Amino acid sequence: MKALLVEKPGVMTVVEREQPEIQNADDVLVKIKAAGICGSDVHIYHGTSPVATYPRVVGHEMVGEVLAVGSEVSHVDVGDKVVIEPMIGCGECYGCKSGRPNACAELKVRGCHVDGGFQEYFVAPAKAVYRFDSSLDYTTAAMIEPYTIAAQITWRADIRKDDFVFIMGAGPIGLCVLEMAKLKGGRCIVSDYNEQRLKIAEELGADYLLNPSECDVLEAVREITGGMGSNVTIDAVCLPKTFEQAVEITSVAGRVMCLGFTQDVSRIAQLNITLKELDVRGSRHQTYKFKEVVELFNRRALNPEKLISHILPYDEVNTALDLIDNRPQDVCKIVLKFD
Amino acid sequence: MKALLVEKPGVMTVVEREQPEIQNADDVLVKIKAAGICGSDVHIYHGTSPVATYPRVVGHEMVGEVLAVGSEVSHVDVGDKVVIEPMIGCGECYGCKSGRPNACAELKVRGCHVDGGFQEYFVAPAKAVYRFDSSLDYTTAAMIEPYTIAAQITWRADIRKDDFVFIMGAGPIGLCVLEMAKLKGGRCIVSDYNEQRLKIAEELGADYLLNPSECDVLEAVREITGGMGSNVTIDAVCLPKTFEQAVEITSVAGRVMCLGFTQDVSRIAQLNITLKELDVRGSRHQTYKFKEVVELFNRRALNPEKLISHILPYDEVNTALDLIDNRPQDVCKIVLKFD
Repeated sequence: MKALLVEKPGVMTVVEREQPEIQNADDVLVKIKAAGICGSDVHIYHGTSPVATYPRVVGHEMVGEVLAVGSEVSHVDVGDKVVIEPMIGCGECYGCKSGRPNACAELKVRGCHVDGGFQEYFVAPAKAVYRFDSSLDYTTAAMIEPYTIAAQITWRADIRKDDFVFIMGAGPIGLCVLEMAKLKGGRCIVSDYNEQRLKIAEELGADYLLNPSECDVLEAVREITGGMGSNVTIDAVCLPKTFEQAVEITSVAGRVMCLGFTQDVSRIAQLNITLKELDVRGSRHQTYKFKEVVELFNRRALNPEKLISHILPYDEVNTALDLIDNRPQDVCKIVLKFD
Repeated sequence: MKALLVEKPGVMTVVEREQPEIQNADDVLVKIKAAGICGSDVHIYHGTSPVATYPRVVGHEMVGEVLAVGSEVSHVDVGDKVVIEPMIGCGECYGCKSGRPNACAELKVRGCHVDGGFQEYFVAPAKAVYRFDSSLDYTTAAMIEPYTIAAQITWRADIRKDDFVFIMGAGPIGLCVLEMAKLKGGRCIVSDYNEQRLKIAEELGADYLLNPSECDVLEAVREITGGMGSNVTIDAVCLPKTFEQAVEITSVAGRVMCLGFTQDVSRIAQLNITLKELDVRGSRHQTYKFKEVVELFNRRALNPEKLISHILPYDEVNTALDLIDNRPQDVCKIVLKFD
């Protein structure tokens, strides 16, 4: 079978790999049909991931058709359309034992620490495989995983009805967060320099749009919220500066969501956190969110197709990477097809 | 009546004030019997509080005897021993409406924004007055308020049985937190440069004691926790550096408690928060914790007397301030008597 391998930073090639087979009674063999390219795949390709190892078959937003199941697998059948969860917790650490395997001290992520979904066939344990409605097409369903990330963020952010939710950055994660936040009743303010992305945000129901090249964003958020500040601020830009701004603009008793992987420091004064009794919360991957998001996809409660800017055959992955690197303003989500 | 007034930073004097009287049907008139000196009173005295205004009668850890009640007051009677809650929320802001009046955007605190408890008589609305058991002496009961602060911190920190709880600083708040954390089943590590305070921490049940002058504290916490780091870190030192250390040493899925009022910045990398999916939580004053703490005092579940290093008549407040400023190693909590 074919797989997309990052041999070392900067080199992504189509390679021939042995097709995996069912080994254990709880294994599921999946013919991969589609997989989205995530920012973290691009980081691994560029050598800027703080956690990935090489060589690596990347990709963790993968969906496909079940070809075979082990003798003990009962919740999916041959022919089912499924999505595969990329996260593997150790089961033993404080994170895992607290019901937070996503924060596992020894976390392994398919496509990062172990080989991922950019290959024609994949074997995963049944507990990592979720069936979705057969009427959903694979390309759309490749968006399930990014929406689980947004489900985690909005769960950790404890968004309540009528909360002012300030989403910094309207990339794929910011837009998925917007949709999940709207489902929870948030009044959503979205900022981005990219007008095309702001347009998508508007179509997805953003209540307020801000372009930092045209206004002082913090002042605008203060004005929109009657001086209070945003009750929830989700930093999907993840620069040292945006994290500082998020802590500054968030209201009393508010939540600041931190998603960044940068080791560059932000300058944060305790006063802001104590005086407003803020919660500054990390959000990494997701915990048990596939079931919830698959259900939302099944009943068409979300608009994932609006986020897909390109669909390309897997062997054109370098065209995709070139688009991401050199025409970022035209790219939202690129999905690779494997059929 | 006499009151202790900070006319301006650096000047604390005994002044004559008109004795307050019951004005409203829900008022309670209290003869103040004892009141503790908090670090924030000292900040107001020194002019280093970021929120206080002058002139100000300070003090917010006050207890006394009910002398009279308004016509609609039913839950306390003349002769009852009571503690007075210092916090006044606006009732209208996002904090108040979220059940977090302690984080009120317009918060007023008795002894800080409005006059406080260092005076012989005090009138407060009934909802701010809590009766405690008549067998408790006033000096001990003056510790109820600091323990409510600790109750808030340990509630916000979500301490679970067997959590490793690292308490930085064994001052009055650190020690109150230690007692509350032990009640929740935490395994408590306490650090302080002051051996006398560490000795009190030991008597209160600290499981591990660390003196930063004798060891690398973070390395020691790592060793104690088998490399994991503390599940909860409570920074009761509140220096820019200790906040940075707290974020560094806390385990995956852990909680960092931020109590500081400094505007000096800490250098915080998002990576630490995201990768470990940390919660960095402010804790300010308390929300509805008096009932819980009064009950703990009534059934002698805590050891407040161990924290009291000095008891002085109120008119010797300048002796108390001199002790705090010039012999901090000998001072834990000073309680002023008003009878």
